Amino acid sequence: MPAKLQLIPLGGLGEFGLNMMAIRYGEDIVVVDAGLMFPEPELLGVDIVVPDVSFLLENRPKVRAILLTHAHEDHIGALPYVLDDAPAPVYGTAFTIAMVEARLAEHDLLDSTRRMVVRAGEPFQVGPFSIEYIHVTHSIVGACAIAISTPAGVVIHSGDFKIDPTPSDNNPFDLHKFADYGRRGVLALLCDSTNVDRRGHTPSELAVRPRFDDIFNQAAGRLYVCCFTSSIHRIQLALDMAREYGRKVAFVGRSMERNTEIAHRLGYLDIPDGLLLRQADLRTAPREQTVAVISGSQAEPLSALARAAVNNHRSVEIAPGDTVVLSSRIIPGNEKQIYRMIDHLYRRGAHVIYEDEGGPPVHVSGHASQEELKLLVSLVRPRHFIPVHGEYRQLCQNAALARSLRIPKLEAHVALDGEILELDNQGLTRTGTAPIGHVLIDGGSADELVEDVVIRDRRHIAADGIVLPIVAVNPQTGRVHTPPEIVTSGFISPELADDLLGRARDLVRETMEGCSSEERSDGSLMKEKIRRDLKRFLQKQTNKRPLILPVILEV
Amino acid sequence: MPAKLQLIPLGGLGEFGLNMMAIRYGEDIVVVDAGLMFPEPELLGVDIVVPDVSFLLENRPKVRAILLTHAHEDHIGALPYVLDDAPAPVYGTAFTIAMVEARLAEHDLLDSTRRMVVRAGEPFQVGPFSIEYIHVTHSIVGACAIAISTPAGVVIHSGDFKIDPTPSDNNPFDLHKFADYGRRGVLALLCDSTNVDRRGHTPSELAVRPRFDDIFNQAAGRLYVCCFTSSIHRIQLALDMAREYGRKVAFVGRSMERNTEIAHRLGYLDIPDGLLLRQADLRTAPREQTVAVISGSQAEPLSALARAAVNNHRSVEIAPGDTVVLSSRIIPGNEKQIYRMIDHLYRRGAHVIYEDEGGPPVHVSGHASQEELKLLVSLVRPRHFIPVHGEYRQLCQNAALARSLRIPKLEAHVALDGEILELDNQGLTRTGTAPIGHVLIDGGSADELVEDVVIRDRRHIAADGIVLPIVAVNPQTGRVHTPPEIVTSGFISPELADDLLGRARDLVRETMEGCSSEERSDGSLMKEKIRRDLKRFLQKQTNKRPLILPVILEV
Repeated sequence: MPAKLQLIPLGGLGEFGLNMMAIRYGEDIVVVDAGLMFPEPELLGVDIVVPDVSFLLENRPKVRAILLTHAHEDHIGALPYVLDDAPAPVYGTAFTIAMVEARLAEHDLLDSTRRMVVRAGEPFQVGPFSIEYIHVTHSIVGACAIAISTPAGVVIHSGDFKIDPTPSDNNPFDLHKFADYGRRGVLALLCDSTNVDRRGHTPSELAVRPRFDDIFNQAAGRLYVCCFTSSIHRIQLALDMAREYGRKVAFVGRSMERNTEIAHRLGYLDIPDGLLLRQADLRTAPREQTVAVISGSQAEPLSALARAAVNNHRSVEIAPGDTVVLSSRIIPGNEKQIYRMIDHLYRRGAHVIYEDEGGPPVHVSGHASQEELKLLVSLVRPRHFIPVHGEYRQLCQNAALARSLRIPKLEAHVALDGEILELDNQGLTRTGTAPIGHVLIDGGSADELVEDVVIRDRRHIAADGIVLPIVAVNPQTGRVHTPPEIVTSGFISPELADDLLGRARDLVRETMEGCSSEERSDGSLMKEKIRRDLKRFLQKQTNKRPLILPVILEV
Repeated sequence: MPAKLQLIPLGGLGEFGLNMMAIRYGEDIVVVDAGLMFPEPELLGVDIVVPDVSFLLENRPKVRAILLTHAHEDHIGALPYVLDDAPAPVYGTAFTIAMVEARLAEHDLLDSTRRMVVRAGEPFQVGPFSIEYIHVTHSIVGACAIAISTPAGVVIHSGDFKIDPTPSDNNPFDLHKFADYGRRGVLALLCDSTNVDRRGHTPSELAVRPRFDDIFNQAAGRLYVCCFTSSIHRIQLALDMAREYGRKVAFVGRSMERNTEIAHRLGYLDIPDGLLLRQADLRTAPREQTVAVISGSQAEPLSALARAAVNNHRSVEIAPGDTVVLSSRIIPGNEKQIYRMIDHLYRRGAHVIYEDEGGPPVHVSGHASQEELKLLVSLVRPRHFIPVHGEYRQLCQNAALARSLRIPKLEAHVALDGEILELDNQGLTRTGTAPIGHVLIDGGSADELVEDVVIRDRRHIAADGIVLPIVAVNPQTGRVHTPPEIVTSGFISPELADDLLGRARDLVRETMEGCSSEERSDGSLMKEKIRRDLKRFLQKQTNKRPLILPVILEV
């Protein structure tokens, strides 16, 4: 009896982020992606969330490879933690592997991890799997779908994609390869669901150019272009425009500097000689002749732009007449902190351009809209269509969209994390469940905190108790109302608490006093600062790392 | 020496909500609007936020009138609290006053408050002010701008508006009246800034009709139309469509029932005989012949639709094949809880239609976009242009937009809450500041909790301490991990705490156990339930009302 083909989604089906799918044939497993999720900005005192990979730990000897589709955090960010439980060779395109290496180095995992650079269109063998990367267009370079041929049939994982007929690097989506697979027969297509609720086509990356042209043409002072630090296409556009309009460029923000360095080294970023400035030179260079390409598009509390917005960045000072462009999506949940940052930028006298309606776009999505999704399904004509990369509603909508095409024999299935799907040409059976869950990681650091990159360990929530610093602030004036309070649970014995918590209260007061009233009026920034300072203090004093949940009361 | 004209913004300038503006000439003050703000959904254990009106309290004998532009919560919601400090006659159109009366009755303020129904185009005198309401188009009926003529000049407050050439009630925006005032000379225009970042024109209310037509045409099972409960135009459209497609209609949700009753009584809602069903009849009426017009567009945890989505509503059960239409805006900050509700609706098997891109809209905004704002300024040609109703960036953008029109002598000023602006034809002077702030109200109730409508009192945060119930839940399975913890600060003496908090922990456990795993996986719903139950318990036991901030750890 031939072995069965199983798909085991370990993350990303029914949630935003944590993308990870195990594919098993007999005694062999390959894993597609190992993504993280960013925690709710409001509450959790943790840095990142990674999937529970007990399933891989149990099956550790069977895991042959981790195949990465592209280098976005929600596809590679959990890799260092996954490798602990399932050390296996890691495959990806050159850019993806380079991005991964930077991360592995931070975790001291570089030597122990085999990295395999693959090229689209050049199949390779892993155990019983014949694997081919297929070039797709997406908001990051080096993005691929993956076709995995097994004795039971071919599985194609779309990765993240849009079908851009005019990508800025002239390297289009490989329609022909998908058509080839479709002609020969595909057992299952696992398909990105991110933009399934958008009609029509997602605009090409090219659509941003007219708006950038307009912005560069009008900008009087310094120009700040803020985008996702992995948006190499967008960064290239900013560089091209800067050259055209006679401005020099500085990269600002740790991940912006790192990612552009990698992209440049690999030939994905074309930087003419003499175009770049060092960040420190921004202090003296003429404002109207410079562009800062800067990180912090989600207004992460310690990111470069968020710091500059409250006038607290070592080399960037935003002045009246400057223009700030947010060339990025607002990730749901971040709206309030982003609008707060924009308000701060206006207080600095800057003009801020962000996503709006009508007119040419300042940002385009990297994910396929409905007509592109239909096109992919029509090309691949799979026996089984399984939406991935989406919350429940998006998976349902994507399945309905595929069914609406009335492709003969196509079955669309909504599956969720942890369901073990066994499939062949007869059908799909849900044969059991695998353990899944969220593992919260506390110990990382925000973008700019180089000094904080320490050994990161994984710990389940509240093993060391919970500490809640409570501060009452007037959001208009930034005035602190009462002395800070600290309440704890499961952290320290009452007899020891008085002295320690007294000193902790002093520390919180000092943190508050060390900030400008503008900073103090920004709840999410203050929470992050209080959490960071208190974490260091408590760890030093008690060698414990409680969960710290700052509570800012706006009164 | 003639008296000076002063504008004193007490809320809404530099924040979203709390709209309130005092206008003073000599010894007389009128107040335009008295709005509330809804607290952050994530953190605050309070129901609503109202402006600090110490300024009015200090000037109590001078306050001649409270003039309401329209009946949205962010314009009338603070009225019961404001009347405590500044009892004055309340003016508004018939619909606005009727909506206010419902609220005043709950607060037992009906007898003590003079209500004056005014009509657009019929000026009246209040002290030295000659006041005229001007009809505008907006997402609520009975919306007006207000022109206030003083010996120092005319001030026009736009209220909330768009310029809709085809409103569904054929009662268009009164362009001519604004033109008249503009011709005679206007000292100051206070102007809505909500949609200043949108280009072009806001689509007419009429633009929703084709989409509704399509939805009614396609819907197989029961149809649920969810919109803001004050969107009388939208509700009328749902009624018209229901009649056309042979469906009967039930109103579901307390404020939906109340508001439609008021609108019907005043002739704003045309309901043919025999069209309405009682809510209870939804249990037995044929699904394909019924529409439920239901509240809960922001997925407020205890609203009708949010309850139905987790199958916990007494008369509404959503079944596979039903269609749910969210015909409303997603208010920033509510994204996550709304998408969570949509996921629950999909789990019930419903098809959900919500705001998307491309194609005819399922919702249109009630606020003016850039071209409409330009038109209003061009008609009124004020000496001073002062943006209101917006966060800081929006005020800046609106001021810049007005300046871009190059109207002779027009000066645009960005002012913030609490700044006292003194103005005449010579210019605008900032002469001082008035006390402002946020007063947090705990003691109200959510939409459906009729039994909870008790005397609401105002209290500053933390007067009775803080109680933080902490529960760890697996968001995928809804499983509760560890027994609930409760930590407190400033609430109860340690010797009394053990017993009380032990019982409080039991109560929280019972609350959790009384919920389905689907409900337990919904953090915001659980927070609201825990808060409600714990509040009752603690109030009964201690006669105190601490601030209760439930913490749900997703593990």
